[in-house]
Amino acid sequence: MIQGEVVGSVVATIKDKNLTGLKLLVVARIDTNKKATGEQIVAADTVGAGPGDRVLVTTGSAARFTAGTVESAVDATIVGIIDHVDIGI
Amino acid sequence: MIQGEVVGSVVATIKDKNLTGLKLLVVARIDTNKKATGEQIVAADTVGAGPGDRVLVTTGSAARFTAGTVESAVDATIVGIIDHVDIGI
Amino acid sequence: MIQGEVVGSVVATIKDKNLTGLKLLVVARIDTNKKATGEQIVAADTVGAGPGDRVLVTTGSAARFTAGTVESAVDATIVGIIDHVDIGI
Amino acid sequence: MIQGEVVGSVVATIKDKNLTGLKLLVVARIDTNKKATGEQIVAADTVGAGPGDRVLVTTGSAARFTAGTVESAVDATIVGIIDHVDIGI
Amino acid sequence: MIQGEVVGSVVATIKDKNLTGLKLLVVARIDTNKKATGEQIVAADTVGAGPGDRVLVTTGSAARFTAGTVESAVDATIVGIIDHVDIGI
Repeated sequence: MIQGEVVGSVVATIKDKNLTGLKLLVVARIDTNKKATGEQIVAADTVGAGPGDRVLVTTGSAARFTAGTVESAVDATIVGIIDHVDIGI
Repeated sequence: MIQGEVVGSVVATIKDKNLTGLKLLVVARIDTNKKATGEQIVAADTVGAGPGDRVLVTTGSAARFTAGTVESAVDATIVGIIDHVDIGI
Repeated sequence: MIQGEVVGSVVATIKDKNLTGLKLLVVARIDTNKKATGEQIVAADTVGAGPGDRVLVTTGSAARFTAGTVESAVDATIVGIIDHVDIGI
Repeated sequence: MIQGEVVGSVVATIKDKNLTGLKLLVVARIDTNKKATGEQIVAADTVGAGPGDRVLVTTGSAARFTAGTVESAVDATIVGIIDHVDIGI
Repeated sequence: MIQGEVVGSVVATIKDKNLTGLKLLVVARIDTNKKATGEQIVAADTVGAGPGDRVLVTTGSAARFTAGTVESAVDATIVGIIDHVDIGI
């Protein structure tokens, strides 16, 4: 999984019906120091994340292994909101 | 998923029969500021996208989870046309 | 999928029997301007591509979705020879 | 698989139920010289790894092929603790 | 698939039982000119490769499509030893 920060939400009127009802958020990838690495991905949200939240994103086929994304055409899903990362513990 | 801008379409007379009938578009990856990151991918189009459209592309096995690409030999599919991205909302 | 140019073929006497009979080509990834991006991959060829050909390569699990590569241990397959890319059309 | 060093653990109160009970560690990717490459990933731990451990991480669909991660929404799993790498042997 | 050179082997006493019996080698990715690109991966070996061998590595789900790696938690498998690459032929 990767660590990211939610920076916005995607509005798309025309889309595959497979995506209907899914909230799609833009996530900027960050590292443990909350420093952005520059890469952005769009992920389906299943945990109620919002802008500024530090989130955990699972990618690839694993993105379809949540109740809300089974057989969806998504390659990235937000599966957790990170409270903090314990360093060295 | 990734954000991209359609820059052209691929013409290929010789191709695997598995791809017959699929429209294949070249997409330049962009970020939320519509800045191109330099990477290009070729994606099957299922939503009627055209040049200049800002699109949402799903990659990997997820690319086969649309009605038009089931069991196709595609690793990227355009699944939406992005109207806009709400930043910080 | 990615755009590439065939630069050579791999000769491997010792290989997994799963690959027997497959032609394996080295492909340099290129963008729409035919500029090499530096990355090389080795792909199974199912369309009769040769050196200098501009090709379309599908990667990941999708590489096994052609008649010649079903259940093969390949993660990249050439699925088309690109005639040209229509820019902005 | 990739080589990594465990740098911390993720604390996430809100998460997909699919992840309940899994220990999630932040891993910094390293090379054979133990030099960090800059990339960080979050991986499920199935072998009891801790901070400072040099670990082996499997990614993608393979991450679900351990007893503790079957059908989990994880795209990376720590599958071993590296004692050392024999160079040139 | 990618081209690589074997640089060492991984010794890991503690590992997922799924990996028991598999030889795990560190492979430095190289291009056709045998120039290392800097990236290293760890791959299961099914062809008897050793240090210095130039090898062909398949990644992702394809890594499980060899007799020795079926249902293994591996995301990379050495599937061939490269004799040479015919350039432009």
